[in-house]
Amino acid sequence: MIIPTFDDMLAARERIKPHVHKTPVLTSTYFNTLTGAELFFKCENFQKAGVFKARGASNAVFGLNDEQAAKGVATHSSGNHGLSISYASGRRGIPATVVMPRTAPEAKKDAVRGYGATVVECEPSTSSREAVFAEVVAKSGADFIHPYNDPRVIAGQGTCSLELHEEVGPLDAVIAPIGGGGMVSGTCLTLSNVAPDTKIYAAEPKNADDAYRSFKAGHIIADDAPVTVADGLKVPLKDLTWHFVSNHVTDILLAEEQEIIDAMYIIWQRMKIVVEPSSAVTLATILKNKELFSGKRVGVILTGGNVDLKKLPWMAI
Amino acid sequence: MIIPTFDDMLAARERIKPHVHKTPVLTSTYFNTLTGAELFFKCENFQKAGVFKARGASNAVFGLNDEQAAKGVATHSSGNHGLSISYASGRRGIPATVVMPRTAPEAKKDAVRGYGATVVECEPSTSSREAVFAEVVAKSGADFIHPYNDPRVIAGQGTCSLELHEEVGPLDAVIAPIGGGGMVSGTCLTLSNVAPDTKIYAAEPKNADDAYRSFKAGHIIADDAPVTVADGLKVPLKDLTWHFVSNHVTDILLAEEQEIIDAMYIIWQRMKIVVEPSSAVTLATILKNKELFSGKRVGVILTGGNVDLKKLPWMAI
Repeated sequence: MIIPTFDDMLAARERIKPHVHKTPVLTSTYFNTLTGAELFFKCENFQKAGVFKARGASNAVFGLNDEQAAKGVATHSSGNHGLSISYASGRRGIPATVVMPRTAPEAKKDAVRGYGATVVECEPSTSSREAVFAEVVAKSGADFIHPYNDPRVIAGQGTCSLELHEEVGPLDAVIAPIGGGGMVSGTCLTLSNVAPDTKIYAAEPKNADDAYRSFKAGHIIADDAPVTVADGLKVPLKDLTWHFVSNHVTDILLAEEQEIIDAMYIIWQRMKIVVEPSSAVTLATILKNKELFSGKRVGVILTGGNVDLKKLPWMAI
Repeated sequence: MIIPTFDDMLAARERIKPHVHKTPVLTSTYFNTLTGAELFFKCENFQKAGVFKARGASNAVFGLNDEQAAKGVATHSSGNHGLSISYASGRRGIPATVVMPRTAPEAKKDAVRGYGATVVECEPSTSSREAVFAEVVAKSGADFIHPYNDPRVIAGQGTCSLELHEEVGPLDAVIAPIGGGGMVSGTCLTLSNVAPDTKIYAAEPKNADDAYRSFKAGHIIADDAPVTVADGLKVPLKDLTWHFVSNHVTDILLAEEQEIIDAMYIIWQRMKIVVEPSSAVTLATILKNKELFSGKRVGVILTGGNVDLKKLPWMAI
């Protein structure tokens, strides 16, 4: 296990600077009044590829030497990581393969292809995915970039909270959603160095609370296929992200499905921005734990904005 | 007819500065590639009350002397102007009355009440509206703030393109949607002074093309109740706005309903922001008139973001 360092994160920042946005930080009088806190929303929904994962993917792709780069990169993902790898490799002009389940929505496959990657389909099972992926790597020699359990990826995600810290100054707390823990780990990596007094909270759907249970138990617990509207947060912690979460996170807060949908709706309605359900878990947990945040300066990481605009969760209510 | 001057606009800027946002200007690699132009989106959807009209309303409300202010203000509107008047008068702490059709959605009435104004209902006819409104003004002595045919309102709207000009420098063209012509008139007022070489285009729904036909005919033509998804653009030009439009606008461009909906959809999808249909008419007309804008630096005024998230126009397709 190679744990990324603060210097790795600083190097990542220089490496990816030409390829990602310094995203804006928005504030909202309405939400400040509603929560009693002073909230600073870091808008990674405006990031390249519509998600913070463009940071980690760009750091991994642009950090390859030319020989490895020529062989390309590969990953498996039916979501934002595949899109981000396609974005970064397309930008560097190297081959990328994303293994996706045959059953993934065509729109998602098209989006991944849109930035230049090749989509290879597998059956919607872990065994098929692993077999197909192994074949891709064996044939091409492509470098495998894991969605979160990769030091290059975590160092890249850490650049987000560095920007936030530099723009708004010391915060009492920062909250980010947690799935595999890539963003939370990057946040821990950065803030434990530049702002060690800032408390780091993770927000998780109650329906996919494996990180919460891991945190309370003191070891990784992984669930099989949890069901939540926050589709970016279904994956389990791995050793690298567990390292950061177990060492630096103050607490993990949970939100019910309806609370996540309601929070997403009021973010769209009041802030006029498109965020995905995973991003809204943060606000949902702040609203039900006001006593933790009231009177505090709180950074809220809105992780992404990739949603199917024709299937919005409040339409199904 | 009192025509607002450039100095009125500068005074408006100072007057409203504490009460409105200096809204961000966003760019999009995707839309630049798609159009061949360099587009600068002025995001008034992030404005107070979710719409540029907070500028004109604030200028009118905060420009009143104390005696008049004590009697309050009044307007009739079933949309963004009512909301903006409520916002501005609530902020000054003076009474405001908004006459709205009994048949307007309850959510809109609640939004107007949310900032502090009193809603007085009328029947959904011009005669009822005028009778009820006259009664309100007679009783209260409230100052009538017209949604657009008011020099204070036009001066206020003109502050938007001043910010745009100051932030991004000289533009080849600026395009804004046109209904009654308040935003377009403010844009003309400002740019004809600070950037007389910048061409000003207005974008209008084909289904509500009264400004287009007025422009071509050389005199005001008003339609009765046009039907368009761009519900902010149904009203006709009046003498003050006609003055600016006829003197300073280069051309008025039209878009079909489906083109407006498609443009709105891709703005949400690609820029991750919530804009209302009226705002999207601009991009729709750029996309069908690429030859006018290709290679040019173009300001695009996204006027507002107040939509019913549960009734999105592409859901009905």
